[in-house]
This record gives sequence, structure tokens and C-alpha cells, in this order.
Amino acid sequence: MAETSRPLDALNNARNKRVIIELKNGKQFVGNLKAFDIHINAVLEEAEERENGELKRKLGVIFIRGDTIIFISPA
Amino acid sequence: MAETSRPLDALNNARNKRVIIELKNGKQFVGNLKAFDIHINAVLEEAEERENGELKRKLGVIFIRGDTIIFISPA
Amino acid sequence: MAETSRPLDALNNARNKRVIIELKNGKQFVGNLKAFDIHINAVLEEAEERENGELKRKLGVIFIRGDTIIFISPA
Amino acid sequence: MAETSRPLDALNNARNKRVIIELKNGKQFVGNLKAFDIHINAVLEEAEERENGELKRKLGVIFIRGDTIIFISPA
Amino acid sequence: MAETSRPLDALNNARNKRVIIELKNGKQFVGNLKAFDIHINAVLEEAEERENGELKRKLGVIFIRGDTIIFISPA
Amino acid sequence: MAETSRPLDALNNARNKRVIIELKNGKQFVGNLKAFDIHINAVLEEAEERENGELKRKLGVIFIRGDTIIFISPA
Amino acid sequence: MAETSRPLDALNNARNKRVIIELKNGKQFVGNLKAFDIHINAVLEEAEERENGELKRKLGVIFIRGDTIIFISPA
Repeated sequence: MAETSRPLDALNNARNKRVIIELKNGKQFVGNLKAFDIHINAVLEEAEERENGELKRKLGVIFIRGDTIIFISPA
Repeated sequence: MAETSRPLDALNNARNKRVIIELKNGKQFVGNLKAFDIHINAVLEEAEERENGELKRKLGVIFIRGDTIIFISPA
Repeated sequence: MAETSRPLDALNNARNKRVIIELKNGKQFVGNLKAFDIHINAVLEEAEERENGELKRKLGVIFIRGDTIIFISPA
Repeated sequence: MAETSRPLDALNNARNKRVIIELKNGKQFVGNLKAFDIHINAVLEEAEERENGELKRKLGVIFIRGDTIIFISPA
Repeated sequence: MAETSRPLDALNNARNKRVIIELKNGKQFVGNLKAFDIHINAVLEEAEERENGELKRKLGVIFIRGDTIIFISPA
Repeated sequence: MAETSRPLDALNNARNKRVIIELKNGKQFVGNLKAFDIHINAVLEEAEERENGELKRKLGVIFIRGDTIIFISPA
Repeated sequence: MAETSRPLDALNNARNKRVIIELKNGKQFVGNLKAFDIHINAVLEEAEERENGELKRKLGVIFIRGDTIIFISPA
């Protein structure tokens, strides 16, 4: 991974790559990170909702509101 | 879907299309996305509330306050 | 309903009409929408609190703080 | 009640009158509305805390932080 | 009590007097109000924590973060 | 304690002294207050986590996010 | 540890060192602190999730949203 001096640089390095996003309500979404902003609003493509590591449903494109997110990490 | 470099571009691509909005309290609304703003306040037309995938009630036009929203995705 | 390009336009279209406001704590208020602002603070007249669709109490004029609101929809 | 084009006009109309304030934790305060600001911080005089419509305690002057308030309505 | 046209005027009138502060978690602190700011951050001196009206512990000086406060009232 | 006209003056008086910080989740940290800012983000040195007054673990230096704090008081 | 007059100085001293981050939902992440910002958004490398001190899963790089964090401390 490239150098990151600011947190959003790390998200930028993950753009167009597969990431896992965990939400405050315990849900997990996996998909290709297409976009994000300073509020950490994020857009995934080819997104799936997972529960305990198992596929729960396929969602295609999904816009996730930043304030519901706990973390974003490469999948 | 068109290219999205910012999250709100993805919402713009969904304008006038049928979307599902999931709220922090677990409720789901399906309707035509007519409007949204930077707070993710959103307006749906021909909106329905669903519970576990089943129709619970029809609401027509509905204004949803952005801070209650977890995600927005094409229906 | 008139065209709405921004969410607050939809609220403006509902001004002086009967609306239902659902709150984060599950309460529902029905009344005539007299005023709102960018925080979605809202004032209803001839307001009633409802529980499961039944009248619980009459409140007359009521000022509702915006951050407690989930959605506003024509009644 | 006088015309209200903005929500805070409705509060202004209630100034020096007896109001009920319901809080997010379910508590209710009744008193004379002496002051409020854009955060909906509010000051009541001759205030009482009520529970299910019954007097729980008398508080005299009380400053209530706006972000705890659900609604304000004439008592 | 002197006239209050703004809510913080009421707090100013209570400065150096004994007040009760009730928090969102149900705790109550009683002490001399020495300082407050626009966030309602507050400092009490000779402070006590009370539970159901009984002394739980003495704290001396205490800085309370404003966003935890429900109300402030003369003790 | 020196005069405090603003709440942060009280924190300034506690700088380099032993304080107790109580968090919204009920945890308590005791340590030397080395730094704080307007968000009430705070840094303790020689910090300990306590539960019901008993030592739970030693943490050394700890950065505590301000919005998790209920109060700060001399230990 | 070097002198810290502001809380973010303490985080800066921890940059590139191993830290533990505890979240509001009780989860703990341990990793090398690569980046943070004024919202306390933080990036860890070689990150692990721990539960009661035991390794739960390895995550590599992880971006953690600041408003979910309780504290950051050297591991």
C-alpha cells in the first residue's frame, strides 16, 4: 500500500478495489469502492450484504451514509 | 451505471428511478427518488413501506430526514 | 404534486396541508403543516398524536424539533 | 394563533404562555416559556415535571438543553 | 429572578448559586455553578452526585460536558 | 482552585494534576491531565481504567475522544 | 513521550507505533497508527481485531471512522 499521511489517502488507495464496510448496526457490506467523501459517505458496486461471513443478499450499487460506518478495510 | 467520482453522483444517477432506502430503525421504503440534498434528506414518490420484503403500507410522497438513512440502492 | 428538485420543495408543496410526521421514538403526529426550516423543525396546527392509527391525544399547535423526525408524508 | 411562516415564530407566539415540553427520555415539563434560542434551548418558569399527566415535582426556573426536546406545545 | 430574554441569561442568573444538573444517563449533580459556555459545558464547585435525592459521592470541582446535560435548575 | 469564568479555565487549572474522567459507557479513567481541546478531547498520562473504584488495567498514555466524556474532576 | 500541549500532539507521537483503539461498540483494534485527522478518523496497518485480549481476526489496513472511537493508547 502507498504511503498515507491522511486517513482519506488510505481510502483513495482502496478506490476501485474490493472492500468490506462494517456498520454501527453490525451489518457488513462487501463491494468495489467507487466513491467516498469527507463525511465518509461511500458508494460500492457489485455490493453484497453479509452476515457472519455468509452472503445475505446482492445489492448492486449502494450508497452508504457515512455516519453509519464503523470501518472500511480491503476485503 | 455512469461513472461516479463522488458519492452524490451515484444518487444523481438514481434520480427518477426506483430505489430502496433502509433506515437506522430497520424500516425500508421503496419509491421513485425525486430529490435529495447534501444531508441525504430524500424525497420518494409512489413510496411503500416494506417489512421483511412485504408491503406494509403505501405512502405516496414521502420526505425522509437524511440522518435516519443507512443506505440507498436501486430497487 | 408539483416538480421537486430539492427535498425541501416537497415540504413546501405540503404547506397548509394535512401531513403525518413519524418520530424516531415511534410516535406519530398528524396535523396541518404550517412551517418548517432547514433543520426540519416543523410546526403543525390541529395536531393529534396517534398510536397504531388511533387518536391518542389532541395537541392543537405543536413545534417538533427536526432531529427527532424520521419522515413527513401527506396524511 | 398568529401566522407562522417559520417554526421559531410559533415558539415566539408561545412566549410567556404555559407550554408542555416533552423530552426524548419521556419526561414532560410544564411551565411558562420565558426564553428559547435557535438550538431550542428553552427556559421555563413555574415549571413542574409530570409523569403520565400527574405532578412529579416542582422545579421553579429550569433551563432545558434543546437537543433533549421532542416537542413544545401550549399546555 | 431577573428578566431573561435568552436561555443563557437564565444560566447567568444562576451563576455562583446552587443548582441541580440532570444528565441524560439519569445522574444528578448538585453544586455551585461557576462557569458555563454556549455548548452548556458547565463547572460546578462543592459538587455532589445524588441518586434518588440521596448523596452518592462528593466530587469538589467538576467539569460536565454540555451534550450530556438534560436540564439545569436552582437546587 | 483559581477563579474560573469559562468552563475550559477549570480544565486548565487541572492540567498536570490527577483527574478522573467518566465516560458515557460507564468506564472511568484516572490519570494526569496533559492536554485537552475545545472538543474536550483529552490526554492522560499514567492512566488507569477503574471499575467501581478498583484498578482494572494500566494504560500509560491515553487519548480520549471528547464526545465520549461525561465529566472530568480532580481525582 | 515528548511534551504534548494539544491532544493531537499525543496522537502524533504515536504515529507509526503500535496502538490499541477501543470503539463505542466495545470492539478493540490493534495496529500501527499510520494516519489520523481532526475528526480522529484513523488508519491502522497490520491491524487485528481483539476480543477480551484474544485475536479475533486479522484485517491488514483499516480505516476507522473517528466518531466510533472511545480512546487510542499505545499497545
